Amino acid sequence: MKGVILCFHPQARIVDLCHQVGAYDVLGGALALAASYRYFPPGTVHLAVVDPGVGSARRALLAQAGEWLFLAPDNGLLELVWRRHPHRVLALRTEEFALQPISNTFHARDVFAPAAGRLASGARPEDLGSPITDYARLEIPPVRRPAPGRLEGAVLQVDRFGNLITNLEPAELPAAFLLRAGGALVTTLRSSYAAALPGEIFAIAGSSGYLEISMNQASAAETAGAAPGTIVEVLES
Amino acid sequence: MKGVILCFHPQARIVDLCHQVGAYDVLGGALALAASYRYFPPGTVHLAVVDPGVGSARRALLAQAGEWLFLAPDNGLLELVWRRHPHRVLALRTEEFALQPISNTFHARDVFAPAAGRLASGARPEDLGSPITDYARLEIPPVRRPAPGRLEGAVLQVDRFGNLITNLEPAELPAAFLLRAGGALVTTLRSSYAAALPGEIFAIAGSSGYLEISMNQASAAETAGAAPGTIVEVLES
Amino acid sequence: MKGVILCFHPQARIVDLCHQVGAYDVLGGALALAASYRYFPPGTVHLAVVDPGVGSARRALLAQAGEWLFLAPDNGLLELVWRRHPHRVLALRTEEFALQPISNTFHARDVFAPAAGRLASGARPEDLGSPITDYARLEIPPVRRPAPGRLEGAVLQVDRFGNLITNLEPAELPAAFLLRAGGALVTTLRSSYAAALPGEIFAIAGSSGYLEISMNQASAAETAGAAPGTIVEVLES
Repeated sequence: MKGVILCFHPQARIVDLCHQVGAYDVLGGALALAASYRYFPPGTVHLAVVDPGVGSARRALLAQAGEWLFLAPDNGLLELVWRRHPHRVLALRTEEFALQPISNTFHARDVFAPAAGRLASGARPEDLGSPITDYARLEIPPVRRPAPGRLEGAVLQVDRFGNLITNLEPAELPAAFLLRAGGALVTTLRSSYAAALPGEIFAIAGSSGYLEISMNQASAAETAGAAPGTIVEVLES
Repeated sequence: MKGVILCFHPQARIVDLCHQVGAYDVLGGALALAASYRYFPPGTVHLAVVDPGVGSARRALLAQAGEWLFLAPDNGLLELVWRRHPHRVLALRTEEFALQPISNTFHARDVFAPAAGRLASGARPEDLGSPITDYARLEIPPVRRPAPGRLEGAVLQVDRFGNLITNLEPAELPAAFLLRAGGALVTTLRSSYAAALPGEIFAIAGSSGYLEISMNQASAAETAGAAPGTIVEVLES
Repeated sequence: MKGVILCFHPQARIVDLCHQVGAYDVLGGALALAASYRYFPPGTVHLAVVDPGVGSARRALLAQAGEWLFLAPDNGLLELVWRRHPHRVLALRTEEFALQPISNTFHARDVFAPAAGRLASGARPEDLGSPITDYARLEIPPVRRPAPGRLEGAVLQVDRFGNLITNLEPAELPAAFLLRAGGALVTTLRSSYAAALPGEIFAIAGSSGYLEISMNQASAAETAGAAPGTIVEVLES
């Protein structure tokens, strides 16, 4: 991919966002992108490919949202971007610029990288694609409110430190609460990892913007026996 | 390595090819390089070091092949490049430009990176090395044809998705076939991962140019109990 | 982090030093940095964040040492740099330039990256921080000499090949010696991995500048049952 981008735009500055999205994990990719894209300069081309449907009829997308451009397969990988910004979505006319022959297993190299290189070197979105509105959406587990003073969310992601990234927003947490995530009971909100007691499992406002369940220098995921999808219950107390 | 390259050529654009070649795995390195080098711009300097012989008398090589330059230890790491292109090979005159003192364990930093930086900043191959013809070759397991309608190949590599990359070329596969790789029997050729049936293990023309054995969102390597070196038998049926 | 750096300095050349420092491993980070920083061009800004105290009252540091600049939390991560060079240390005035709001869990992005971008684009250290002298130090296990002809050191780090990086300097090793590290007895010093006998565990002058305990194409750490902290005893023989 990087070689192809450099063929189209030798001056490109290419940055790896992370090396930790799991195979086929579209939601994990969407979250990694959502945590990062706003910190890049306006005009940055974000190329994101988690693509179990590669080689099928799924389309390749180009999106303009906020001050950035995005390239991704049509499988919801850009869902969190779309929820935050007015956006315009185009389906790439891949035959016009893809590497030939297009492989059926590596469109990141054959389709998306040529598009990224062209955009980075000045092509306009409409040079590469045609507007659509029926792009795929991704279901993000919603926070439910089954009763007053009660929230039911979920773990979206576990980071490499074992922090549980939930779908709850820090502001939703009551001042006094009892939170259950897997086998862990949490009753404290800490302002930093170092503020925690030894062995304590606690809630914290994470850098992703979401509420996270964490430990200081230990894995909350292991301690709680929690993973993406684990239910997170909150009771006002 | 990257710091040294930048000392010799501050404007260098450095790209990591991958982070997944195993320790001492010269064949794995050769395959990673073979899958990628042609996608980089003409003139790119490819620096590849899988080097169990570091610090011994093995030479350090510079090769010109196709439109690219290559730096590698003299252990066959460039074998697949040589099979595809007319090439010229030079042994580096390391004493003339290496970092001093040269360590006995990290020539990537002390020998190859200075050579890469110099080439990138305009040095000519003959400024750094002297032509040789007796460089080491690497044995790649060949495809055998023990009887009419029968092929015997091998798994060369397993990628991070668990796909088995074989030494067979897709065009060699008969229209109707029975393929055995480890504990798996394969009778279908699919055009994409998504075209497979649930749980199916199938053959596919991989982006590497080789025939691969794959599953849709699952590991063919685990299912088949296969690893690099596993025999792949094909019977026309 | 990289996006933020590029926002402050679009021409920045960003290099990942490694992806293998363990979570919370300040000593491991200090060693990775110590093995590498001198190979980068003068003026390079080294941004190093292993930061269990993120969000607490620990300060953020900027240091000038040798020909380089360093940014790191105030937890001893720069200890080995300080031992080698006269240095000047400043506490960052984070409120003046950090991203707002500053998260309590990701200062690499919110504090250190803006500082790095500003330094790379020409800011002076005193524009960003104020001199201090009471910065935190890191205890590196010292080499003890409990009796004549006897040394007692420790394993500092295990690299991805399973080499044991000790705190001993190669010059300290007697000409004839018996070295014990975990369950391994070592009596030979080899000049390269390839010079070793099959299955031999041996000492070697590593590229880090330290004495290492290694095997040829096998893991000395596994064979010796050794890990960071394992005692290394040397007897002159």
